[in-house]
Amino acid sequence: MDQTFESYVDQHFDEFVEQLREYCKHPCMTGQGIGVRETAEATSDVLRGLGADTHILETSGAPVVFGEIGSGDRTLLFYNHYDVQPPEPLDLWESEPFAAEVRDGKVYARGVADNRGDVMARVQAVQSYLATKGDLPVKIKFIIEGEEEIGSPSLQAFVKAHRDLLACDGCIWEGAGRDHEDRSVLCLGLKGVVHLELRLREAKVDLHSSFATIVPNAAWRMVWALSTLKSPDDKITVDGLIERVFVPTEQQLDLLRAIPFDEKELRTDLEIESFIQNLTGLPLLRKHLYEPTCTIQGLFSGYSGIGLKAVSPCEAIAKIEFRLVPNLEPDEVIRLLREHLDRRGFEDIEIITHAALGNAQASPDEKISVAAVQASEEIDHKRPIVYPWMAASGPMSFFSVDLGVPVVGAGSLWWYDARAHAPNESIRLMDYRKGISLIATIIDRFAAA
Amino acid sequence: MDQTFESYVDQHFDEFVEQLREYCKHPCMTGQGIGVRETAEATSDVLRGLGADTHILETSGAPVVFGEIGSGDRTLLFYNHYDVQPPEPLDLWESEPFAAEVRDGKVYARGVADNRGDVMARVQAVQSYLATKGDLPVKIKFIIEGEEEIGSPSLQAFVKAHRDLLACDGCIWEGAGRDHEDRSVLCLGLKGVVHLELRLREAKVDLHSSFATIVPNAAWRMVWALSTLKSPDDKITVDGLIERVFVPTEQQLDLLRAIPFDEKELRTDLEIESFIQNLTGLPLLRKHLYEPTCTIQGLFSGYSGIGLKAVSPCEAIAKIEFRLVPNLEPDEVIRLLREHLDRRGFEDIEIITHAALGNAQASPDEKISVAAVQASEEIDHKRPIVYPWMAASGPMSFFSVDLGVPVVGAGSLWWYDARAHAPNESIRLMDYRKGISLIATIIDRFAAA
Repeated sequence: MDQTFESYVDQHFDEFVEQLREYCKHPCMTGQGIGVRETAEATSDVLRGLGADTHILETSGAPVVFGEIGSGDRTLLFYNHYDVQPPEPLDLWESEPFAAEVRDGKVYARGVADNRGDVMARVQAVQSYLATKGDLPVKIKFIIEGEEEIGSPSLQAFVKAHRDLLACDGCIWEGAGRDHEDRSVLCLGLKGVVHLELRLREAKVDLHSSFATIVPNAAWRMVWALSTLKSPDDKITVDGLIERVFVPTEQQLDLLRAIPFDEKELRTDLEIESFIQNLTGLPLLRKHLYEPTCTIQGLFSGYSGIGLKAVSPCEAIAKIEFRLVPNLEPDEVIRLLREHLDRRGFEDIEIITHAALGNAQASPDEKISVAAVQASEEIDHKRPIVYPWMAASGPMSFFSVDLGVPVVGAGSLWWYDARAHAPNESIRLMDYRKGISLIATIIDRFAAA
Repeated sequence: MDQTFESYVDQHFDEFVEQLREYCKHPCMTGQGIGVRETAEATSDVLRGLGADTHILETSGAPVVFGEIGSGDRTLLFYNHYDVQPPEPLDLWESEPFAAEVRDGKVYARGVADNRGDVMARVQAVQSYLATKGDLPVKIKFIIEGEEEIGSPSLQAFVKAHRDLLACDGCIWEGAGRDHEDRSVLCLGLKGVVHLELRLREAKVDLHSSFATIVPNAAWRMVWALSTLKSPDDKITVDGLIERVFVPTEQQLDLLRAIPFDEKELRTDLEIESFIQNLTGLPLLRKHLYEPTCTIQGLFSGYSGIGLKAVSPCEAIAKIEFRLVPNLEPDEVIRLLREHLDRRGFEDIEIITHAALGNAQASPDEKISVAAVQASEEIDHKRPIVYPWMAASGPMSFFSVDLGVPVVGAGSLWWYDARAHAPNESIRLMDYRKGISLIATIIDRFAAA
């Protein structure tokens, strides 16, 4: 900890909070076409105010705000987004979602946890660094996109088209936040995912169910098809899929052993008596993080009203997703599924791909991983919780895979009741203050690693 | 054919059509609470006009209109209903649904085919009989209910409470109509049915799908449960169910062999390439009529909107029905299903019964069956098509099983494009004219059988 730096931040903290509040006052719901350009401009102004060489770059969708500051052999990239989730339902908010009210030691605003607090903490960390410690020891690049909350549809093409601009040695993503015991949670990657829709059609219309004797029923055929994809013991049975899954190394298993995973609390929270297959301990965590999934997101066919309707449905739709661990690539999984269905007489089931993202992984030995872990421990005075990767998915792979850069989720201001995507989203001021120090420390540790 | 009778009907036919039109002008949508009492009164007036001893009898729902006329050792019961389906969508009607317009040799009205034409043809047949042939050779009873279009919820209790009033030797139901080649179609019963809803709940809310690794998914468990009920070769696999199914006698198979079932037309009509298991001929018809079904009417769980949603659903619902052939009783089937699910770890699936009706069968050797077949052949100058029972279900079993009376569907005015339950419902005047003769002939044949 650099006392000059810390004093500077303490002195300017009220001002920093006001800057954060100002930034949170820009609604930006890209899916609804609200505030996109204006918020990109505001974001650009923030980076320009820092002294960064800043550009608003067009994509096929919302523009990307890019900024670059400092020099050095090593380059650190910060990924963030300036868009937010829609604030609805408005009546559940205790203060206006874009008023950024401060109360009880928190800032309440749509997007403050996800991820505008992060944006400002990073900028203010760099500003404080420059004001107190002199030149940055690494070059810092910011990429702040405007489509994260709608699945980053333009980001991959943007990254591929701007390899040189984005070139870096490590990337800090939006992180995973803090747990109940105030430990920092870092994640060194994400699972991949394919979101698919299976569609099946039989007769031209729903039939009177008395004909279900002899006319194929779409709901039944979908049930039979799905039942071949995963067995009741929760094993994925798509031909050739499980065989491809990576086998974790001892180092990877050690990462799991070090995670304090509160099973009981999760069970209580979800009101379930047990986890799948009654798993517990390491096998539970191993299944959660190191195994792929095949999940039914939605299933619908036929009559969904009150009571009964004597129909035999002609159409059935299943929305399914596969979360992917290393060695499973989206295209390969879709191909395996197609062949699996064809082999069983389900050639007529159409597969529509709604989204596909690869998995992302950074080794714990990467410089950026080591720097993030060291910085967290230094600031928190306790070991952070390090996830090998999140069970969720995101566009991290565009950087990790397409750009070949190790990406780490760290420094997030999410706390356990941050309510991201929900009414009364907030960050705690104490986390915000620590977050600024954490970013400055990551910069130093990354420079020295 | 009795020429005096036929001349009388010819002379009065315009008047009969006007009476039918008047009767069709009463909207009666019981589900919507529209016109019930008024139409019961109008129906009662029609029977009273015939000279029948007529009563409006209360039930727990819409009243039943009961009439009795004539005497004789043998009693014939006519079952009909005075309610109709809602006329919507109104904009698809070429004339007002309750104006009962006559054009192109047809009467167009909501409910004219289902089944107000039948009501009036039966009444007018009896009136013409009395006017030309003297005393009725049998006692005739009319039961005309007001809840058929909503599933006859009050009828079974009514029948059980009025055994003496309804006592009879045979019952003529609403029949099955005429086919493309103008052949009368009779049916000697109905399949039974149970309409069930299976409900399953896991966690207290839908989860982020990244937790589908370790938290049970309701959609999957429903798929697995359903997949144990019927195999992809369309065999019902509920423990102990198929073993109970009746084995048809040679006489029952002969009934199937005599049915001219136009498979090709049905396939073309439904735009399907083949029937289940590529069945054709007698095996197809045998499966259609002599086998039970287990049909998914509706299936829903999770996200049903556009694109994807990364959820793992906590709830799943399946609406299923079993159509029942002899030896399968509703209660027994529900019990077998419950035990089957429990045995496989699905004790937590709730089974809700929406409706249950037994099957109804009249032997072709019953007097009422013989009379209906003879009368049809005499009026049409060709053999009717005799179905052992319909693949559909209805409240016929309340009479067949609860009252122990053979029930035959015969004399219906449905033609192949009658559009019952749909806009522009109609009957043909030529069928109406024949229908009056047919009822009179059934009365004579039943008296003589």
